[in-house]
Amino acid sequence: MGNPSSSPLFSRFSFLIISLFLLRSPAAANRLLLRLPSKPDPKNAAATARWLAGQNFWGVLSTISSDLGGAPFGNVVSYSDGLPNSGSGIPYFYLTELDPTAKEALKDARSSFTVSEYPLGTCGNTDPENPSCAKLTLTGKLKLLDNLSAEAKYARHALFTKHPEMKDWPIGHNFKIFRLDIENIFLIDWFGGPKPLTPEQYLNYGKIQRYLSYDFLT
Amino acid sequence: MGNPSSSPLFSRFSFLIISLFLLRSPAAANRLLLRLPSKPDPKNAAATARWLAGQNFWGVLSTISSDLGGAPFGNVVSYSDGLPNSGSGIPYFYLTELDPTAKEALKDARSSFTVSEYPLGTCGNTDPENPSCAKLTLTGKLKLLDNLSAEAKYARHALFTKHPEMKDWPIGHNFKIFRLDIENIFLIDWFGGPKPLTPEQYLNYGKIQRYLSYDFLT
Repeated sequence: MGNPSSSPLFSRFSFLIISLFLLRSPAAANRLLLRLPSKPDPKNAAATARWLAGQNFWGVLSTISSDLGGAPFGNVVSYSDGLPNSGSGIPYFYLTELDPTAKEALKDARSSFTVSEYPLGTCGNTDPENPSCAKLTLTGKLKLLDNLSAEAKYARHALFTKHPEMKDWPIGHNFKIFRLDIENIFLIDWFGGPKPLTPEQYLNYGKIQRYLSYDFLT
Repeated sequence: MGNPSSSPLFSRFSFLIISLFLLRSPAAANRLLLRLPSKPDPKNAAATARWLAGQNFWGVLSTISSDLGGAPFGNVVSYSDGLPNSGSGIPYFYLTELDPTAKEALKDARSSFTVSEYPLGTCGNTDPENPSCAKLTLTGKLKLLDNLSAEAKYARHALFTKHPEMKDWPIGHNFKIFRLDIENIFLIDWFGGPKPLTPEQYLNYGKIQRYLSYDFLT
């Protein structure tokens, strides 16, 4: 009697509230369920950067626009760094040359890819530009993958898992898989300026974690 | 009796649900209340672009990074194009030279600013890269404003209204107000490629609307 959570009325309310939330957007709900890992300690730069890359599913990919006098051109794109909660940290994209980004990247591969913690919903009331609301920019070269390679097969699976509608996008648009080869990392996740983080530290983060777990278990 | 919306129990449920939603984040709730205008018809390019610029409050600002071999560098920033629901379409930023974006822009003003419809919550189940989930890239020159000018006063008010915590950011960081002078507009808001839209059509959109309303009323 005294425990409200066991009351059928309370259960019905909870169910109603949860259903209403989930019904807002089934895709958002699925993505929410995939967002299991909590935000790492900001002191752990590699973990935070990999968390940002793994939990986001869209960002802004910037290339150099020869059509616009060499100006930087940022474009909203979807991406995937692997299967949910087992990403590689390497962003893969599914782009068509009908869009300027892919076309420009094939002429000049210099690119950067930017994601924010803000859309993950973990910044609370904090402004998106406040350093405690984390942001990540990966700079490097955007490379077209050989469509028949094992990596392209993995990337396609990673992309289609996080973006199910991609597999039905028009064949005539000739979408191709691109990878960002990371050369520099800019991470702000707390006050005091960007966190020092090399591409090696970033890319090896999961491997080291897995190795330590293996070492511990054997 | 038969109308559930008049039942006190239903009202209590509704209040509980709405309260729970609003309590998740007061800032988000305020922003939600400000998002009154609904999405324009995608056929109206100027209205859609101005809606994207007016309803978003953060995006990615890209500059040319001399530190990174001339690569494009996209950075997550907050912005404002004016007071809520009466924006000018011109994005204003509050940036410090402690951050690479402002520093680089003062050396090479070529920039682009990118926002997506996705974080506004109106794309539903649609993927952020699907053309029906609108995206806007404004390309041009990022210019530092004279801090004592009337425009800087307006921009500061516009920024602080949408980003209340900015007024308490450290004085020692020497934040300055920048404006993007728009030279090119890339808008995707439906299938069939970018919508033709000149900076003049974009910037004059509200003025024309106001003129038509005035004409109609007098």
